Amino acid sequence: MASPRWIKAISNALNVPENKGKVVYQVATVDSHNLPHVRSQIHRGFITPKGSPNLPLLMTSTDARSPKVVQMLSTPSVELAWWMEGSQDQFRISGRAFIVPPPDHAFHIMSDVPRGTALAVLDEKGEEGQEGGKFDWEKKRREVFASMKPEMKASWCIPVAPGSIIPSYDEVKKWPNSVPNIDEASTAEDKNNWNEALSNFVLMVIEPVQVDWVQLAPRPNRRTRFSRTDDAVFEWIEDILVP
Amino acid sequence: MASPRWIKAISNALNVPENKGKVVYQVATVDSHNLPHVRSQIHRGFITPKGSPNLPLLMTSTDARSPKVVQMLSTPSVELAWWMEGSQDQFRISGRAFIVPPPDHAFHIMSDVPRGTALAVLDEKGEEGQEGGKFDWEKKRREVFASMKPEMKASWCIPVAPGSIIPSYDEVKKWPNSVPNIDEASTAEDKNNWNEALSNFVLMVIEPVQVDWVQLAPRPNRRTRFSRTDDAVFEWIEDILVP
Repeated sequence: MASPRWIKAISNALNVPENKGKVVYQVATVDSHNLPHVRSQIHRGFITPKGSPNLPLLMTSTDARSPKVVQMLSTPSVELAWWMEGSQDQFRISGRAFIVPPPDHAFHIMSDVPRGTALAVLDEKGEEGQEGGKFDWEKKRREVFASMKPEMKASWCIPVAPGSIIPSYDEVKKWPNSVPNIDEASTAEDKNNWNEALSNFVLMVIEPVQVDWVQLAPRPNRRTRFSRTDDAVFEWIEDILVP
Repeated sequence: MASPRWIKAISNALNVPENKGKVVYQVATVDSHNLPHVRSQIHRGFITPKGSPNLPLLMTSTDARSPKVVQMLSTPSVELAWWMEGSQDQFRISGRAFIVPPPDHAFHIMSDVPRGTALAVLDEKGEEGQEGGKFDWEKKRREVFASMKPEMKASWCIPVAPGSIIPSYDEVKKWPNSVPNIDEASTAEDKNNWNEALSNFVLMVIEPVQVDWVQLAPRPNRRTRFSRTDDAVFEWIEDILVP
C-alpha cells in the first residue's frame, strides 16, 4: 500500500520556497455544548506506522490543561485547515485526535489507543524508520518536548492553566521565562521547571480519514477529496470535486 | 460607547507591512452530527451600525449551496481564527453567523435578523457613514458581489454545487471562467451568468461576542480576552489571561 497522494501534495507544497515556515494550521474542535472552537497550532511533523505508508498521522502539541484537550477527549473528531498562501493550496483534514499525556496523568486512562485505527497500527508496529516493535508514545512525547525552544518550554511550567485570568501582563514575569535543556540544567530550579513543564506537555496526534485539497493557483482551480475506507485495508479513494 | 480595543488591535495588525494581504481567516462551524468543520475565508471588511462603534461586525462571503451555509443556518455559533504571521498576532473571534441570501432565496425565511443583537441594531439604524435608516442587506450583497474579480464571480455560476463529484479537472472548463461586470456585459450570456452567479452569492456576517487576542511577539507573550455583555448595553469586558 503506497503513500496517499495527498501527503505528497503537502510535502510538495511545504517545499515551495514561498511556503517556507508554513507549519501553522487551524484545528477545529467542538465543546460539550456542541459549539465550535478553532485555534492555530504548529505542525510538529508526520508519523508513519512501520509498513503502512498509507497511514500517515499528523502531530502537534499543547498543554494538558488547555480546554481543547478536554474537548478532544470527549469528542475526538477534529478538522484542520492548512492554508499555504505561497502556493495557494488549502488542505482540510478531518479525522480523529488522540491525546498523549504523561504516563501518570489522569487523562491517560481516557486515552487508550482506539482499535481498528491507524493509531492502533502505529501502537503495535512502531514508527517507520525506527528500531523495535511497539510504539513508545512516552519516548516520542519526550523527544518532541526536548526539541522545543527554551522560551516555549517555559510556557508549560506556568503554575496556572492557560486561559486563566491574571491581574496584569506583568504577572507572567513571576514565572520562568526560559527552561534550558535538561543536559544544560545547572540548578535544581531548572530541573524542577523541566519536570513541571514536561508534566503538562501533551502530544496531539491526528489520524486523517478525509483530506480535501483545493488548489487555487491553477486555472481552472482544482479540488480533490481523498477519503479513507473504513475497513482494515485503509484504502484512499480519490474524487475530483467542483472547487 | 467607543470602539472595542480589539478592533483597533486588528486594524493595527493589518497595517503592519509584514501582514500585508493577511485577510484570510479560518471559520469553524458544526454540522448536524455535531462534528467540527473549518475552512479558509477571505475577510471582506467590517460593518459598523450607525451610532454603535462598539458593535463592529465581520463580513465574508460564500456560495448558498456550500455545506457551511446549512451548518450555520442550523447552528449559527461560529468561531474563527485569524493568524497574522507577520506580527505574530492571533485573534480568535467567536460569535453568531448570519447568512444574507438573495431576497427570493429559499433560505431567506430562515434568516430573519435575530432580535437583541448587533445585527438588529445594524438592521434598524443602517451602517455608519451611510445615508438613510434601515440597513439595505440586498444593496450590500450586490456591492460586495460587484467588487469580486471576474474569475471569482464565475465560481458562483457553475451549475453544480461546490463539492459535487465531477469526472475530471477539465469538466470545469465547460463552465464560464470569467463573468465581467454587468456594465461591461456585452452578450446575453454574460448577463445570464451575472444573474446566475448573483443568485448563488451569499454574505456571511459574523457578530462577535468574544475575542481572544494572543500576542506572540512581545516577551513575555500577552493574551487578552474581550467579552461582550449580553444586555442591551453591549459593553466589552477586558480580561488579561495566561497566554
